[in-house]
Amino acid sequence: MTLPPTGLAAHLRTRPRGLPTADDFEIAPVRLASPGPGEVVVRNLFLSLDPAMLMLIAGLPGLPMPIYEIGEPMYGAAVGEVVESHDPALPAGELVLHQLGWREYAVAPAAQFRPVERGPESPSIHLHSGLVAYTGLRLAPLRTGDTVYISSAAGAIGSLAGQIAKLLGAGRVIGSTGSAQKVGRLIDDLGYDAAFEYHDGPVAKLLRASAPDGIDVYFDNVGGSHLRAAIDVLNPHGRIVLCGALEHQLSDSADPRIDPFPLLAKRITVQGFTVGEHQDLAPEYRRLLRDWLTAGAIRPAETIVDGLRNAPQALLDLANGNRVGKTVVRL
Amino acid sequence: MTLPPTGLAAHLRTRPRGLPTADDFEIAPVRLASPGPGEVVVRNLFLSLDPAMLMLIAGLPGLPMPIYEIGEPMYGAAVGEVVESHDPALPAGELVLHQLGWREYAVAPAAQFRPVERGPESPSIHLHSGLVAYTGLRLAPLRTGDTVYISSAAGAIGSLAGQIAKLLGAGRVIGSTGSAQKVGRLIDDLGYDAAFEYHDGPVAKLLRASAPDGIDVYFDNVGGSHLRAAIDVLNPHGRIVLCGALEHQLSDSADPRIDPFPLLAKRITVQGFTVGEHQDLAPEYRRLLRDWLTAGAIRPAETIVDGLRNAPQALLDLANGNRVGKTVVRL
Repeated sequence: MTLPPTGLAAHLRTRPRGLPTADDFEIAPVRLASPGPGEVVVRNLFLSLDPAMLMLIAGLPGLPMPIYEIGEPMYGAAVGEVVESHDPALPAGELVLHQLGWREYAVAPAAQFRPVERGPESPSIHLHSGLVAYTGLRLAPLRTGDTVYISSAAGAIGSLAGQIAKLLGAGRVIGSTGSAQKVGRLIDDLGYDAAFEYHDGPVAKLLRASAPDGIDVYFDNVGGSHLRAAIDVLNPHGRIVLCGALEHQLSDSADPRIDPFPLLAKRITVQGFTVGEHQDLAPEYRRLLRDWLTAGAIRPAETIVDGLRNAPQALLDLANGNRVGKTVVRL
Repeated sequence: MTLPPTGLAAHLRTRPRGLPTADDFEIAPVRLASPGPGEVVVRNLFLSLDPAMLMLIAGLPGLPMPIYEIGEPMYGAAVGEVVESHDPALPAGELVLHQLGWREYAVAPAAQFRPVERGPESPSIHLHSGLVAYTGLRLAPLRTGDTVYISSAAGAIGSLAGQIAKLLGAGRVIGSTGSAQKVGRLIDDLGYDAAFEYHDGPVAKLLRASAPDGIDVYFDNVGGSHLRAAIDVLNPHGRIVLCGALEHQLSDSADPRIDPFPLLAKRITVQGFTVGEHQDLAPEYRRLLRDWLTAGAIRPAETIVDGLRNAPQALLDLANGNRVGKTVVRL
């Protein structure tokens, strides 16, 4: 195919204090570099949007990945198709996963792209967060019959974590989310046994009502009030995996602190993790996912937004909890 | 031997708010019961004093063991000698470990007593907290070359945890304690590579000065300011074991809370434990301790107080940090 001379790409123009606005982004055509030997050109099909990107935009420290620098290309997980190749090991036509998102075309050495399977599903399936959910549940570790609580349950990770927990043997899975409509989706579509709207009262009270016998595992995507509630309701030898801290990311005023004394008294385990450090689990997860998809045992939920220019607003919608499942930008 | 008609025993007369005073205890002679079939009489030699007893006295909830009830006999680890036996499996003369402390004589079924080895050391060695230290370090888990930080380092657990950490392969062991004199003991007698007096400044600053390359394991006996400092200074993939919460026990006003976000960002593991649930580690620890004692590789530190009537004051002294090593009452 003949490449266009330019493609849209995004960078930060200014760094917001807190949540960004459209004015903080520059989204404009950039000239595509000519690929050199060993390089390929990838036309991106889908860009992944993740709440953690808000921390990279705001420049908050503490994440194990670089923040977005002003004027520099923004990275992000994307899936695309090789349209021109100067490396015989990665021919044109391959579907690839990579980190050069926030642009319509990526030109880079072939080693930066990982070929992925073309299945009957949308290519965006490769951007879904099931491996994160699977990794957290394995690390906890989840045991057969456990009662599991998952916060941000309708989000990209939570919408798969509930289903995967059940498939891995959880006895009962409870989710929390931010609207009555999403509570319905959790129960009807996403495999949750119980769910609550966290604005409806103190989280600990709502959680206890859904889990009268306590919980054994807490998969934390939120922190703050949800983490404190989970510690309150956890049974002895309960296990917490820390995967995200949405409350901290979305509000300067939310109190993130916990009293660790119950961790000692109830002999609870807490572990923070990042999926990138557990890639040894990826092959088994991909096999399981293929089996579950084939059997119709798992239903990945997705929100699709069209066009890179709509990505900033979609990221804010995501942060505000207006989306169910994985949010992707179709490019 | 002919038994005396009575022996001293202690119970709580009133429940203190916060730390107890001598008036809260009744320590008086009680008539010894006649042992029935299957029972033995044990003359206690040493009673163990533990900071957690202050929580049992104050009636604070949350510990995985019963509080002391008003007027009821107080329990506690003790080592004693069988002086009369009505069970052939546990003859007179045996040295035994048991939980019927806070009294000069214990009369109970033989099954409540566990025979222990009579070695060249004082029988009080069986009350030392090395198994607690060993369990925490194994659970962390401690890895060869790790830098380890231990709070309340001159206490019953810390005074052995530092030595055991080194024997298990730690690269560098750092302790904190409450006086310059005890800092000296940590370095000179107790195997610590570095130590600081925690009143000398913000704990995180003092810890960082002792551990310029960060710490890998934190053995927490204190909580609060020490736990927050450790989280601050821990390296990625750092590990925390929660063993005690002295700051919480000794002060109503100390803020126990931590910000869990660094646990996520640095992929840190935290686990609360109690030694009673890890008795599978006891046989290997006892073998190691015997080897270490024989080789002169470990030096258990001990403070001895004479007489049950002095136990309450000794418990307060212990809480106030005026003791080094394991505090025992000689009966």
